[in-house]
Amino acid sequence: MTMHSKFITKFSMTTALLALAWPLSAADGDQALLDKAKALFQPLPATAALENSSLTPTRVALGKALFFETRVSNDGRLACATCHNPAYHGADSLALSVGINGKVLPRNAHTVFNTALLVAQHYGGNRVSVEDQAVKALLSPLAYGNTSYEQVEKKLAQLGYQSWFDKAYPGEAKPLSAENWGKAIGAFERTLLTPSPFDKYLKGDTKALSPLAKKGLTTFIDTGCAGCHNGVTVGGQSYQKFGITQDYWKLTGSTEKEIFKGYDKGRFHDTKNEADAFMFKVPQLRNVAATPPYFHDGSVATLPQAVRIMGQLQLGKDLSDEDVNAIVAFLESLTGEVPANFAQVPQLPVAPH
Amino acid sequence: MTMHSKFITKFSMTTALLALAWPLSAADGDQALLDKAKALFQPLPATAALENSSLTPTRVALGKALFFETRVSNDGRLACATCHNPAYHGADSLALSVGINGKVLPRNAHTVFNTALLVAQHYGGNRVSVEDQAVKALLSPLAYGNTSYEQVEKKLAQLGYQSWFDKAYPGEAKPLSAENWGKAIGAFERTLLTPSPFDKYLKGDTKALSPLAKKGLTTFIDTGCAGCHNGVTVGGQSYQKFGITQDYWKLTGSTEKEIFKGYDKGRFHDTKNEADAFMFKVPQLRNVAATPPYFHDGSVATLPQAVRIMGQLQLGKDLSDEDVNAIVAFLESLTGEVPANFAQVPQLPVAPH
Repeated sequence: MTMHSKFITKFSMTTALLALAWPLSAADGDQALLDKAKALFQPLPATAALENSSLTPTRVALGKALFFETRVSNDGRLACATCHNPAYHGADSLALSVGINGKVLPRNAHTVFNTALLVAQHYGGNRVSVEDQAVKALLSPLAYGNTSYEQVEKKLAQLGYQSWFDKAYPGEAKPLSAENWGKAIGAFERTLLTPSPFDKYLKGDTKALSPLAKKGLTTFIDTGCAGCHNGVTVGGQSYQKFGITQDYWKLTGSTEKEIFKGYDKGRFHDTKNEADAFMFKVPQLRNVAATPPYFHDGSVATLPQAVRIMGQLQLGKDLSDEDVNAIVAFLESLTGEVPANFAQVPQLPVAPH
Repeated sequence: MTMHSKFITKFSMTTALLALAWPLSAADGDQALLDKAKALFQPLPATAALENSSLTPTRVALGKALFFETRVSNDGRLACATCHNPAYHGADSLALSVGINGKVLPRNAHTVFNTALLVAQHYGGNRVSVEDQAVKALLSPLAYGNTSYEQVEKKLAQLGYQSWFDKAYPGEAKPLSAENWGKAIGAFERTLLTPSPFDKYLKGDTKALSPLAKKGLTTFIDTGCAGCHNGVTVGGQSYQKFGITQDYWKLTGSTEKEIFKGYDKGRFHDTKNEADAFMFKVPQLRNVAATPPYFHDGSVATLPQAVRIMGQLQLGKDLSDEDVNAIVAFLESLTGEVPANFAQVPQLPVAPH
């Protein structure tokens, strides 16, 4: 028997054994994992529209223009798109975002994708909806820095947006308003859903995840990550204490901040309730692999490092390199494509002369 | 005869007279104006490629990614696209652009469209080409703020661009280099040409300009504007003194600037030659109607105002409202569409972990 034929024989025998054993057990395992996953996660819906509002094309188009509009901010440079940049999967690649006049914001920017589906906006949850966030950002001294909604409305009229609002909100007493700024931007943001391989998987296509990603999904569930990171957005539906086993900054390297008079205590800064100390909105994990750096202050640069720290801080577990790699492979399956309409920058009106 | 039939008769007679006289004289006038225009202006070429370089798809794609890349700047926020924004026709809508860490730049940003066809880059012409501009911006303390090209190359490698450069510049000893950063961005910028109604007109379609725009073109030529604003980019091919009849700041409202130790004296600040005092590159006028505010310091907000001031400052002429309106209509015919590939923001690499 030559080396070659020996190899062939050995290969064929192995194949034959696999043909008997593997498909059955793999299929069983696949179905069991899929069933487990379906109990914890849901695929993205077709729309994130509010029941009582309609995402008309004119509203979405207006909201998209306003999303990219810098001239409403007080230094003329800040737009929603500054921190939610199509080039960086709807985030900005910075540890901490920067508002008008170079003012550093206290927290890391989330991706805008799928954010309309979250329980609330911001890490502290102090914005009840995407519409609420868009309106309140107008007067935030760190964000758009306007002094009143009247000032905003005057700017929008001067820039030539009156007819845009008239068409988007026909029949209203005052179509051009800060409230409709929020509604229009909200309408646009509600279209920014990013289906991913994991959605295909949840819909029954077990081949949509690689074997490593499935291993990671198993570990993600069995280790306890899915206790908080679950639902349609794999997180983003509840608040949790950050730093269960020890103070988070000991592992993240986070620093004290003047605005918080020390370390960031999350919801506490909004509610002033000690029970909310260190409670943060659990971030959604959709598109997490495409949106470093990590945590509320962007203090951790890479996803494997973030996964390892989460195991230690939240679950008291030292994940092995193998586990971390597998979880990262699963998290990568949550990356969707940047919506084409989001990446296509609109032409903004030239102010009439 | 009723009122109605009287009107019909009168109308028909007028039509009959026009049918005899108007087409002939209008066609004559149209052809004479077109001939005059063709002697002064040229339509955009099909490409702005350098003869000794080729705009390969991989180079253009790399250049486009680098154009939108903020992580190479020293505050992580500045990209070419910051001042050359697709939303504002390749400019930024600001009077003065802003570099890293909120540093205000001394001059207004030109549109990036068709700029590869100009005699040089910047108002002072101190950058010989788009490639030269892109490379030197990397070390400018006001722009990207890097301390060395080595630092830039290290950043680009860490961000995951090595394979992009290897593919775009195969066979070179060092594909990932600051020099090739410039070449790639230059390749992308050389694709950003914006044909306009005026190009159709120059190619013989006399209906591509409205009657008012044609009147404006006549005035533009006869008044003397075309003395400097001529050629393929309707300006941008020479240097001229700004403020022939009087100091420019008396009409523009420009202010003294610390960086210039007084008023901006244009090329003088680069050459230190008194003969260059107040000499500025004549701006191209393609897309001028879409890129307010105006002049080297953005001191004038609207196009009619800018046209009126130019008449006074450069030609000693007080243009009538009628002339200004007509010239503005002509200038509006120089607006082209934003190139689709420019408006589509690319996905940038996530740094490998």
